[in-house]
Amino acid sequence: MKAAVLRNLKNILGKDHLLTEIEDRVTYSYDAAVLEPKTPSAVVMPKTREQVGQIVSLCHDYSIPITVRGSGTNLSGGTIPETDGIVLLTGCLNKIIEINEHDMYAIVQPGVVTAGLAAEVEKKGLFYPPDPGSQAVSTLGGNVAENAGGLRGLKYGVTKDYVMGMSFFDAQGNYVKTGSKTIKCATGYNLAGLMVGSEGTLGLIDEITLKLIPYPATRKSMVAVYDTIEQASETVSAIIAARIIPATLEILDNFTIRAVEDFSHAGLPVDAAALLLIEVDGHPVVVEEEGQKIKTLCKKLGVSTLKVASDDKERDRIWAARRSALSALAKLKPTLVLEDATVPRSRIPDMVNALQDVAKKYDLSIGTFGHAGDGNLHPTILTDKRNKKEWHRVEQAIEEIFDKALSMGGTLSGEHGTGLAKAPFLQKEIGLSSIEFSRRLRKAMDPKGILNPGKLTGVTPRV
Amino acid sequence: MKAAVLRNLKNILGKDHLLTEIEDRVTYSYDAAVLEPKTPSAVVMPKTREQVGQIVSLCHDYSIPITVRGSGTNLSGGTIPETDGIVLLTGCLNKIIEINEHDMYAIVQPGVVTAGLAAEVEKKGLFYPPDPGSQAVSTLGGNVAENAGGLRGLKYGVTKDYVMGMSFFDAQGNYVKTGSKTIKCATGYNLAGLMVGSEGTLGLIDEITLKLIPYPATRKSMVAVYDTIEQASETVSAIIAARIIPATLEILDNFTIRAVEDFSHAGLPVDAAALLLIEVDGHPVVVEEEGQKIKTLCKKLGVSTLKVASDDKERDRIWAARRSALSALAKLKPTLVLEDATVPRSRIPDMVNALQDVAKKYDLSIGTFGHAGDGNLHPTILTDKRNKKEWHRVEQAIEEIFDKALSMGGTLSGEHGTGLAKAPFLQKEIGLSSIEFSRRLRKAMDPKGILNPGKLTGVTPRV
Repeated sequence: MKAAVLRNLKNILGKDHLLTEIEDRVTYSYDAAVLEPKTPSAVVMPKTREQVGQIVSLCHDYSIPITVRGSGTNLSGGTIPETDGIVLLTGCLNKIIEINEHDMYAIVQPGVVTAGLAAEVEKKGLFYPPDPGSQAVSTLGGNVAENAGGLRGLKYGVTKDYVMGMSFFDAQGNYVKTGSKTIKCATGYNLAGLMVGSEGTLGLIDEITLKLIPYPATRKSMVAVYDTIEQASETVSAIIAARIIPATLEILDNFTIRAVEDFSHAGLPVDAAALLLIEVDGHPVVVEEEGQKIKTLCKKLGVSTLKVASDDKERDRIWAARRSALSALAKLKPTLVLEDATVPRSRIPDMVNALQDVAKKYDLSIGTFGHAGDGNLHPTILTDKRNKKEWHRVEQAIEEIFDKALSMGGTLSGEHGTGLAKAPFLQKEIGLSSIEFSRRLRKAMDPKGILNPGKLTGVTPRV
Repeated sequence: MKAAVLRNLKNILGKDHLLTEIEDRVTYSYDAAVLEPKTPSAVVMPKTREQVGQIVSLCHDYSIPITVRGSGTNLSGGTIPETDGIVLLTGCLNKIIEINEHDMYAIVQPGVVTAGLAAEVEKKGLFYPPDPGSQAVSTLGGNVAENAGGLRGLKYGVTKDYVMGMSFFDAQGNYVKTGSKTIKCATGYNLAGLMVGSEGTLGLIDEITLKLIPYPATRKSMVAVYDTIEQASETVSAIIAARIIPATLEILDNFTIRAVEDFSHAGLPVDAAALLLIEVDGHPVVVEEEGQKIKTLCKKLGVSTLKVASDDKERDRIWAARRSALSALAKLKPTLVLEDATVPRSRIPDMVNALQDVAKKYDLSIGTFGHAGDGNLHPTILTDKRNKKEWHRVEQAIEEIFDKALSMGGTLSGEHGTGLAKAPFLQKEIGLSSIEFSRRLRKAMDPKGILNPGKLTGVTPRV
């Protein structure tokens, strides 16, 4: 990186907010995806909107790639930088600017932690539903850039469903505003819709306006234990067919149950073939009724035991255990690949079967857990990337999982994004002319190709 | 229009689906906005995807402007064509391709009528909530292109909240696919999000995948009669502050009540200063509770009478009356201007007052009705455009309404779109650099400027 660029960055940021030591740069060379790290030339930590604007303008002038990073929980390589580029950390842009109780919205900076906002709005009786697995550390800027999902997707939708508006800096440092604090807005292009899930390739998010809803009056959590995973997945289908939409409807296979129990000691039944974790929420009468209906369906489909959480403490323990699944599995082998190919929810039993076949075919350990209720399973392959022969089988298995999902009318990524990991497969799903349309759009908005190069649309030439 | 273009159009469409007579062309020269008509050179009625693709390619080759038109209910001039361009009617692209009960989505062609889809899915116990005032004739393609709202916006959101995916032809005739039938999709750019509300300027919609939800179990409609409009608008605020979210919460002022009653003979109280039409829906217990809470609030804020619809017939009569408001008002004077500047919902009392001030200041008849619950009022100015002095005052009044809405944190358009009508005011809301970003995007996707020129981002050069 040119000395002039570093000098300018120091002028903008002051020396404490510019990291250039190798230890610091290596720290930001990778994320949660199993991909080769790349060490950036510098790491910047702006504190103000003005600094962000100045940094973008500078990088535009010198054609320096920018990768914005929240907490680096990205599972598709979306925050792996370029070696001649900078990483921009949003950690110092972490203010909740407004929580409006009457009009039920919040305005936040990109570095606000997801669970932090959720906790603040809950104090006012409001609810910010999107809850990616990493919500305790993930940032809202990252959630928006990736269109993050979570456990509550089937009832409450994903991040995209809560973004009312935003402001951002484009690749040239121009300040763009879109959307509104009003529920309805048909003014100008829906640029906020385009920015959601754009993985840092179209602009740097400044402020986000998020929709809030009233906090549900009550909730009930249940654990349903099954002797076969088929019974569990068919229960998922039956609940959906009955038009009950739980707040969460998660599945864990035996492999995952054992890993989670070993990690969290939550009292999960380690001999069960599969568990469903189910939560219904809302008006007490509705919760009671839906709970009863779900119980009946579980019994009809052969549940071996069904336990209702007796209080919030027990409920929280169950969900904390579920949320530890990724960490628990990650302990077992040197390399963990967490996939998120997603199918229409009625196809969950087929997908569960397909995953078992794939595991057998390629002789791999695949733990399966995830958001069964919205068709978004997380097949998790445990391996050791240094074992080249096995890694080759892993790559084949991943591609076969993608093909299976697509053949069922599904999608490559439910919530982890395209990033570097899935860009090579994008054409299978959307076709070449859709990729070309996307590349043309991107090129127009970022002619020099400095915004998070290589992600989403695949390799694009830099100028 | 060149003879070669017409010959090619006839080859693609056959002579029955190409209209070139002046009577036909004049028919498609205007829409529901008060703007100068423009007579197109030809009107085409494709029956197949292939024909649409061929038409776009032809128009691209010859730089012919294309304006897509559903039912022409557009209130911002979005379907007013260019004189050297064609109007593409979607009326023959009107198939419901799939209604999937299990996975709760529908796939439709753009020409399907909104209420037609709603009726079909209702037969299967499903609900497509977006209900623009014109739903009986409006098309889903038009709804998507305009991000149409409706009466149920406050509880159920707008069109954008139901678009899961779509396919479209870009300006060069390439076929683009985006989104999925799955609830979660983080694959590629959210182009469906960008296309919603893009007013025909980025592509021609082929098929749309729409989210459906379970049909509400029950509903209750109420009519609250007030002696002052302030009491009515304060009741709206009180309901919202109590965190009750009705399915619809509409206001009608005395001017509108009288016009509607005269038109529909629904038995509305013509002496009332204002009415609220309120509907709650969902689980019977919740509906009963929310109904009671609303009653209490109405009484507290001085309602003079409160009537609950006793059966579906009475309910339907009330809502049919409300839906006739536009037609009823349109009968009174030669020119009707229906505005949709929108404010955060807590500001409804302030906006109601502001509208009264504007009417007085400019000596105009302004009827006010609309979606009070989501901040989206429809101030309706009755005038005669031939009266130049009065028309000048109307233009001043409209601009003042925009300014008032923006000063309250609102937006120029809640649901009617930017079109030709609001493009000149866009900068007031989003600023020049946001418009420039939008124009750059548009130019990249449509370098020749053939897709619905002049709408949304204002005048753009054609090549």
